[in-house]
Amino acid sequence: MANESNAQSDYQTDSIFIRKIFNTSLREGKSYEWLRHLTQQIGSRLSGSEGAAKAVIYTKSVMEQEQFDKVTLQNVMVPHWVRGAKEKAQIISGKQKTDVPIAALGGSVATPKGGIKAKIIEVKSFQELRDLGAEKVKGKIVFFNRPMDPTKINTFEAYAGAVEQRGMGASEAGKLGAVGAIVRSMTTRLDDVPHTGSMRYVSGAPIIPAAAITTNGAELLSKTLKANPETEFYFEQSCETLPDAPSHNVIGELKGKKDPSKYIAVGGHLDSWDFAQGAHDDGSGCVQSIEAVRILKALGYQPNNTLRAVMFMNEENGLKGGIAYADSAKSKKETHIAAIESDRGGFTPLGFGVVGTPAQKARIAQWSKLFAAYGIHEIGPGGGGADIGPLAQQGTVLLGLIPDSQRYFDYHHASNDKFEAVSKRELDLGAAAMAAMIYLIDKYGVE
Amino acid sequence: MANESNAQSDYQTDSIFIRKIFNTSLREGKSYEWLRHLTQQIGSRLSGSEGAAKAVIYTKSVMEQEQFDKVTLQNVMVPHWVRGAKEKAQIISGKQKTDVPIAALGGSVATPKGGIKAKIIEVKSFQELRDLGAEKVKGKIVFFNRPMDPTKINTFEAYAGAVEQRGMGASEAGKLGAVGAIVRSMTTRLDDVPHTGSMRYVSGAPIIPAAAITTNGAELLSKTLKANPETEFYFEQSCETLPDAPSHNVIGELKGKKDPSKYIAVGGHLDSWDFAQGAHDDGSGCVQSIEAVRILKALGYQPNNTLRAVMFMNEENGLKGGIAYADSAKSKKETHIAAIESDRGGFTPLGFGVVGTPAQKARIAQWSKLFAAYGIHEIGPGGGGADIGPLAQQGTVLLGLIPDSQRYFDYHHASNDKFEAVSKRELDLGAAAMAAMIYLIDKYGVE
Repeated sequence: MANESNAQSDYQTDSIFIRKIFNTSLREGKSYEWLRHLTQQIGSRLSGSEGAAKAVIYTKSVMEQEQFDKVTLQNVMVPHWVRGAKEKAQIISGKQKTDVPIAALGGSVATPKGGIKAKIIEVKSFQELRDLGAEKVKGKIVFFNRPMDPTKINTFEAYAGAVEQRGMGASEAGKLGAVGAIVRSMTTRLDDVPHTGSMRYVSGAPIIPAAAITTNGAELLSKTLKANPETEFYFEQSCETLPDAPSHNVIGELKGKKDPSKYIAVGGHLDSWDFAQGAHDDGSGCVQSIEAVRILKALGYQPNNTLRAVMFMNEENGLKGGIAYADSAKSKKETHIAAIESDRGGFTPLGFGVVGTPAQKARIAQWSKLFAAYGIHEIGPGGGGADIGPLAQQGTVLLGLIPDSQRYFDYHHASNDKFEAVSKRELDLGAAAMAAMIYLIDKYGVE
Repeated sequence: MANESNAQSDYQTDSIFIRKIFNTSLREGKSYEWLRHLTQQIGSRLSGSEGAAKAVIYTKSVMEQEQFDKVTLQNVMVPHWVRGAKEKAQIISGKQKTDVPIAALGGSVATPKGGIKAKIIEVKSFQELRDLGAEKVKGKIVFFNRPMDPTKINTFEAYAGAVEQRGMGASEAGKLGAVGAIVRSMTTRLDDVPHTGSMRYVSGAPIIPAAAITTNGAELLSKTLKANPETEFYFEQSCETLPDAPSHNVIGELKGKKDPSKYIAVGGHLDSWDFAQGAHDDGSGCVQSIEAVRILKALGYQPNNTLRAVMFMNEENGLKGGIAYADSAKSKKETHIAAIESDRGGFTPLGFGVVGTPAQKARIAQWSKLFAAYGIHEIGPGGGGADIGPLAQQGTVLLGLIPDSQRYFDYHHASNDKFEAVSKRELDLGAAAMAAMIYLIDKYGVE
């Protein structure tokens, strides 16, 4: 009976405190104004860029202004890829030349000066490409045109089913003698903004340039090819990879009162693709992480463990920040109980993905009832996050905030990922959800 | 055992068919393009306006093109209120005059020519107003400035807690001798677009003009009043109520094969406020309703009962369409088993509100498992909808589609309620959810 009534009393206490967290966020949340600065004043923040450097300084200053106990920069060397000035493409069918918008994929090499013009062949899968064989591919540009499956309710599943074309398409095509790779943008929308993203060259495969074409451009190209299989494609891009550059993770702390050498980290990634404001990806996750810690501080919560808001650098094209953070935690013996990431956009939160042992998952799922009043009803399925992933080896429980995914790929890695695309209430709710989860983990642990 | 295995087999059949519904909507949904026309080509559709008349013709033509079995117009006389050309307001503090955007409330009278200039007093509630009494209110403009409560997770609850100021504020102020009423816009955002909406004059109360002020304007006015209680307010508006006008509900049918004289209706309202495209309110609900029936038809589904998509006229300022529809159903003895409404925006669907007997609610809640894969997890709480409300007297079960409510009042009754504010996927999911619900009700009934 004593236990039961303790449990009831705990539940009430927690329920009241979590209500306070949400009220604070919805009444006087600060994340939206921070996001406004990060996106509109600073703008794009690709690793190695001036914007990334400014974002490091800005988020450090925010956490200092909020009087976090300690704010530090963690050194990290990052890839430094730049788009360059030239980016141009045309579909050429007979005498008809039609300009189409493209964007070089992150990590791609440039085309030769003056560009590449070649016949183009469309494939929907790597298998289809291999079945064509070197004979039919050699000297041509390969057009990867398998759309994201619109019937997947979770759009991240649709993304996972298509993104290999972007990541590996160039190498797959290069192995068969192709001279370039054009990849349908990763979005279910039909739109006119190319969606970029990282790609990599497989060791040993010929290195050929790769670019994303808009979905409307892809539809046009496919249609043109059907009408005229002799259709050619022309593209020029002047991107290049510069030497690695020094950069930083930004780490703000509230020191634990009971067990300061144990940590709970909450973070997002500070870098974003070069032609976007990176509002949903992942400015939102950054400001929500700072806000989650700020709210707990504002409510006078004294954490047992040290709480950290972490702005990871270089999620988009290298993950160097996430790796450096985990390496440092290991070498400094900073035991991380749990790490929470927000990197699925600043949309209405619906749940948390949990990566841990069955016992840890069960413990966290027990708290579901405390979240139900806030529309957060799926605790368990889904992953943690890329930046916090490297902590898994140290036994850290990983949690990923799971917002509604319907609009995420409308903006993902594209020039329309702007401040205006973020709803203040949705952003605030996500920050509060993370603050509530930190509170519960800090109070009860995960074992 | 036989029953159990029948139930299992039904579950599988239903599960597969509902998957087909969602696939059809997400792959080849038509509602988004219909909405584009309704909002961008036709635009605002206030009862009695040219836009409303065009919307009647357009949605009729859509259902005819989709080869519904029968498409009819149902006559209905509607209020005909027009905004007029003049709408201007200023905060006057000493020599400082600051223009602020306002919008006459629907149904309000005009100011006298040249406008009204008077001292203005701020109140947060009708009680506070009454406590001030006639002595302090007489000859002044009353400024109703109680915000929607941002801590309500369901924004419709926050709306319900504030909207009396818009609906009844003018009469409450008029009774105490006020000369005008200015009401804080019904939104939790701080923005620069006035959010209009209907108001009515209580019988016997003096009739004074009323307008919505933007939330940023309300904040400024409140601040100015704190600094200078002698602050005056000036506003002029030239709106007027014309004689009632003829208009129509639009009704498209798929005839029932087994029980054609029983009906399941699904609808939204075709009218929208005069300065907005009415994309979320309620163009979305209209196109989703047509789409829900179209999908069932496209899948070759032969309904037991007659299915109707209904475009209700005049939800915003009179509900004449909803009333006429229910009256006609009664007089023609068209038994309506159930009616479903979508009038909470074209956002990600999360559930259905159900109004019916406990047994009916329990039956519908049984189907929850079939919706879970689509993120629809709240079946039961919440209401039906305004337009279908009058059918309740005839024993019709009422269902309201409940989408995520976080962004609804960002756009509600304001000029930013545009096509671009609607996400295709979110719209498609809502249409599919309604089609699935119609299918289950049609197949199993609600008793």
